[in-house]
Amino acid sequence: MEFSVDQIAEILEGTVEGDGNLSLTTFGKIQEAGKGALSFLANDKYEPFLYTTKATALIVSNDLKLSKPINTTLIRVSDPYAAFSSLLEFYEKSLLSQKTGIEQPSFIDESSSIGSDCYIGAFAYVGEKCKIGNNVKIYPQTYIGDNCKVGDNTIIYSGAKLYKDTKVGNDCIIHSGAVLGSDGFGWAPQEDGTYKAIPQLGNVELEDNVSIGANTTIDCATFPDSPTLIKKGVKIDNLIMIAHNVVVGKDTVIAAQTGISGSVEVGDSCIIGGQVGMAGHIKLANRTTIGAMSGVSKSIKKEGEILFGHLAFNIQDYMKSYSIFKKLPEINRRLSELEKKN
Amino acid sequence: MEFSVDQIAEILEGTVEGDGNLSLTTFGKIQEAGKGALSFLANDKYEPFLYTTKATALIVSNDLKLSKPINTTLIRVSDPYAAFSSLLEFYEKSLLSQKTGIEQPSFIDESSSIGSDCYIGAFAYVGEKCKIGNNVKIYPQTYIGDNCKVGDNTIIYSGAKLYKDTKVGNDCIIHSGAVLGSDGFGWAPQEDGTYKAIPQLGNVELEDNVSIGANTTIDCATFPDSPTLIKKGVKIDNLIMIAHNVVVGKDTVIAAQTGISGSVEVGDSCIIGGQVGMAGHIKLANRTTIGAMSGVSKSIKKEGEILFGHLAFNIQDYMKSYSIFKKLPEINRRLSELEKKN
Amino acid sequence: MEFSVDQIAEILEGTVEGDGNLSLTTFGKIQEAGKGALSFLANDKYEPFLYTTKATALIVSNDLKLSKPINTTLIRVSDPYAAFSSLLEFYEKSLLSQKTGIEQPSFIDESSSIGSDCYIGAFAYVGEKCKIGNNVKIYPQTYIGDNCKVGDNTIIYSGAKLYKDTKVGNDCIIHSGAVLGSDGFGWAPQEDGTYKAIPQLGNVELEDNVSIGANTTIDCATFPDSPTLIKKGVKIDNLIMIAHNVVVGKDTVIAAQTGISGSVEVGDSCIIGGQVGMAGHIKLANRTTIGAMSGVSKSIKKEGEILFGHLAFNIQDYMKSYSIFKKLPEINRRLSELEKKN
Repeated sequence: MEFSVDQIAEILEGTVEGDGNLSLTTFGKIQEAGKGALSFLANDKYEPFLYTTKATALIVSNDLKLSKPINTTLIRVSDPYAAFSSLLEFYEKSLLSQKTGIEQPSFIDESSSIGSDCYIGAFAYVGEKCKIGNNVKIYPQTYIGDNCKVGDNTIIYSGAKLYKDTKVGNDCIIHSGAVLGSDGFGWAPQEDGTYKAIPQLGNVELEDNVSIGANTTIDCATFPDSPTLIKKGVKIDNLIMIAHNVVVGKDTVIAAQTGISGSVEVGDSCIIGGQVGMAGHIKLANRTTIGAMSGVSKSIKKEGEILFGHLAFNIQDYMKSYSIFKKLPEINRRLSELEKKN
Repeated sequence: MEFSVDQIAEILEGTVEGDGNLSLTTFGKIQEAGKGALSFLANDKYEPFLYTTKATALIVSNDLKLSKPINTTLIRVSDPYAAFSSLLEFYEKSLLSQKTGIEQPSFIDESSSIGSDCYIGAFAYVGEKCKIGNNVKIYPQTYIGDNCKVGDNTIIYSGAKLYKDTKVGNDCIIHSGAVLGSDGFGWAPQEDGTYKAIPQLGNVELEDNVSIGANTTIDCATFPDSPTLIKKGVKIDNLIMIAHNVVVGKDTVIAAQTGISGSVEVGDSCIIGGQVGMAGHIKLANRTTIGAMSGVSKSIKKEGEILFGHLAFNIQDYMKSYSIFKKLPEINRRLSELEKKN
Repeated sequence: MEFSVDQIAEILEGTVEGDGNLSLTTFGKIQEAGKGALSFLANDKYEPFLYTTKATALIVSNDLKLSKPINTTLIRVSDPYAAFSSLLEFYEKSLLSQKTGIEQPSFIDESSSIGSDCYIGAFAYVGEKCKIGNNVKIYPQTYIGDNCKVGDNTIIYSGAKLYKDTKVGNDCIIHSGAVLGSDGFGWAPQEDGTYKAIPQLGNVELEDNVSIGANTTIDCATFPDSPTLIKKGVKIDNLIMIAHNVVVGKDTVIAAQTGISGSVEVGDSCIIGGQVGMAGHIKLANRTTIGAMSGVSKSIKKEGEILFGHLAFNIQDYMKSYSIFKKLPEINRRLSELEKKN
């Protein structure tokens, strides 16, 4: 980017204090930003950096009072954090929107339809009877199997793989290496000790506003009419495993490397930490929070609970137990001494 | 699919009760299936749904007695679950077998041989001196490095990567994003604190009937003649890490996100839960079961054991210890009270 | 490979005992190697295999004394392990260096520059304004987004994905399926319960001599001038998650499936086991060792500590606590008995 301080101030409807002609080319944190950078001050904790920052300009509150002279040009607004965030967003969108058109070579089956203003990168593959919406960005080397549907404004980054029949809503983001629709891990043990595959005929469906992290895998459902379902607004981080027939409720957030076993139903507005594991066929009530690295082996029926632990229970109780776990050798000694006395 | 009830009954050698002309277009669970769906009843627990299901037809047992009138057409057979499974399988195979031929652009080195009835998707890459068997399906954007061998009837989904020298048996399935043959993680510490790579010259070998999940990684062996070896019938889920020189015994099943360190030998017919970790150079006896999220730090010598825990031991003993772990604050209080009395 | 024993001895400046004309075609472990294989003896523990090995030739120490007649040709050198390692390395390099030239079809934007002696595989994609150094190997189906920089001698294996602005140093290795630069997982909760993306405008930077394992993901930083940074000499295994704004210090080694949360700073020369999890915004001192499957929730300030556990603490203390955890049912019984007596 390249804007003057005055231009930015105009966009934000802010007031400039200092040199409005200076040129801004990047963003940065107040404590690290250098020449040409725009930063902001929204948290009092960072106020000392106000007088030492090397940022060319700072977005600050209308209410901020300076206690010393300052070297940096200020843009005063009513809410600095919101103003800064909206600029970042504006900047990001301006970058992303540059890609349009169909690069060659790419493979688009003639039975498929592509909406307007799409980007299809080189070496991308779109199978038979797919419906790709408007303003969709499909980056290079992406695979869209037969009979998939991708909604408007969705971005699919390089190398994501959508098996046949996958449905993706509007305004979704799917990061590189994510796999949607691989076979559910269903194996019927046979009498001779071998396993036979249980056919997995269902699909994966993402509702609107879903985000899927890099190298995450979501298996297809067993039956055609009950998809593995990620409801609207769900945010899923990298390297997560979501098994067949799982349903994740709306506005739930799941951190990296968590694994959800088959047929689990996660409620709405849950917060699931990283590296969590869930046993199959359980249900989590709405607004459940699970701490990182916890194992959940039973359904959680009460809404709003916070759980933690290898076999998770109430996080405060876990912490109390764990603090005594650390002292177990001492507990053992105390017990032995008492035994001697008795 | 589109079949009449009569056609399905004929395939299954079953008897129709009701309208045999109805059209079936999909499969479903008895409690969820709708119009046009075929479902089944094999478990008494689901018998109440017999009278409420919206499925067009149900596969039921010859022995089933109806207690009320029913709205659904029945197909009576001797074993409903087996009949339904075989239909699913038949249906799945009919779908999969549609892909044949070599899509363009694809890259097949002229020194490689491709068997009959293969599918090679667009943007797939087959390096030098590869041998691809008959009826192999290589989906788009798959990478087959130099000197690989892929057996008959094997399916490799979009974007799987086989490093050079990988050997894959007959009837295997490799899902999207799986990586076979990346370098083993072997680093020799140097005097100056840096690390030097220990060359990893071996390969990965899958025997027949092996299934590898999406985004799973299997590292190559250190030496050329002792591959990282996955024996016949092994089923490996998504996002699993199998390090260099590991051997996994036949008919072992491993759930998602488990990690197996270098040179581990897993026995035959083991069942390994999800998110399990194993320390390097250990051996697991045949028919060992490891509960999800367990750590295994020592060899398991006795066959048929079931283990669990952060450092895993007998699962029943673990559960007893864990139930008291939950009560540790109470144990501590009881101990303190006794100390006061003494 | 195909060399005579005499040729190998000449390269190693060693002395031949036995038939120097024999042909060597592979490498192997002393206990497993067969005809045509070269092996070595560096550890006394393996000395019994000296008399039973089927290897055609063995590299042994000048000092080795034979206690029995031997069937194998010997190459005597001063340091057998170093000699064998250097041969493996020489062999590996001779294999890797074969790939050069630009395979077609590939996509290289005309605004990008490619150094000399590079290999660019088919279906590889190089976006706008990239700078690719000399002797770089970019395997098929790799994605290099706009404005990336890749240093000399770096190898990027098939299907790795570099989002725009990624910087990779000299002599790096990036394995298949690794994703560098996917969006950091930053979501601002809104009043209506939905989440809004916090723009992630930074990038990922790898310094020189960094190795990244298969299907590992490294998210981009939030701000443009403070990259998610992997310092020189760092070795990162497969399926690892490194979140936005993380800094990993030089010569640190991280084993598979570990997850590092946002803004963590890992010190220099740390050793991090597999499946470790780290909470966000913490710092690890230099030379910290974290045992496999541990959770690290607080900063580690003292250098050189070894930690372990679900919420990790000193490994020896953990082991003592865990040994009593195993005996908790017995502890509980002993306590109850004492209570009865009092």
